[in-house]
Amino acid sequence: MSADPAVAIRSARRADVFAIVAMLADDHLGAGRERFEDPLPDSYYAAFDALQRSPQIRMVVAEDQDGRVVGCLQLAVLPGLSSQGASRAIIEDVRVARDCRSRGIGEVLVRWAIGQARDQGCRLAELFTHQSRVDAQRFYARLGFQPSHVGMTMRF
Amino acid sequence: MSADPAVAIRSARRADVFAIVAMLADDHLGAGRERFEDPLPDSYYAAFDALQRSPQIRMVVAEDQDGRVVGCLQLAVLPGLSSQGASRAIIEDVRVARDCRSRGIGEVLVRWAIGQARDQGCRLAELFTHQSRVDAQRFYARLGFQPSHVGMTMRF
Repeated sequence: MSADPAVAIRSARRADVFAIVAMLADDHLGAGRERFEDPLPDSYYAAFDALQRSPQIRMVVAEDQDGRVVGCLQLAVLPGLSSQGASRAIIEDVRVARDCRSRGIGEVLVRWAIGQARDQGCRLAELFTHQSRVDAQRFYARLGFQPSHVGMTMRF
Repeated sequence: MSADPAVAIRSARRADVFAIVAMLADDHLGAGRERFEDPLPDSYYAAFDALQRSPQIRMVVAEDQDGRVVGCLQLAVLPGLSSQGASRAIIEDVRVARDCRSRGIGEVLVRWAIGQARDQGCRLAELFTHQSRVDAQRFYARLGFQPSHVGMTMRF
């Protein structure tokens, strides 16, 4: 893995939604959940607009030197009473374009999120990985995350 | 377990923070993380004020018929792009006062949160339970949650 994958992290723009959904859909779990069509269903843009209005959430992309969006990550920093009133960071929807994996792009994204969490005074960063994503669990463990919790979910 | 534990769910007030922190601290994990003192450290009240300002988070308490706070839960409803732009609900800091357990109060709190998540159009509700909280995992499974994910955490 390259130590410097030469990507820039920047806030996602509405024009990035198509590339982001492409990454979300190109995945063994996402394939059944997303609708990657041209044009995309309006629900994706409505969600993007809601993200933009949320002061506590940032959706970022990794852009390579050619200006292509090759990764994404959503970070929420939420207040809470536990741990002496510490905010916690929740990292979601981390994806790297299939042809750009193993170059350290995911690591740049997640280290960016950890840095943001620290800068904003969080005492805790959390993320869910599906039980089947064994490679992802190894990746996060290497970055310092502990598999301390069971992530329980209910789909409606 | 009583089918009707006779508690009311209502938004937490600043005057409830002491009772909430008492519950957070009275726990094998919370005991080492909280500072349950009278008066409480200001950090708890600062966090409560931040929660009040957040349109996406609700901290609620369960109040018994004598007006005592006997449970709490924090619910965040967050927009996101995945699952066709569906919002997701994150349930945190579920606690029931030690002398009031096994009466169904936790179930009333969590069912309230599930109802809120559905009403607000979420497609997914998520929560973390520490690996050591085996009883909690059984409780959530009974309510319909799946142990589908690994909850990975980093403490700063």
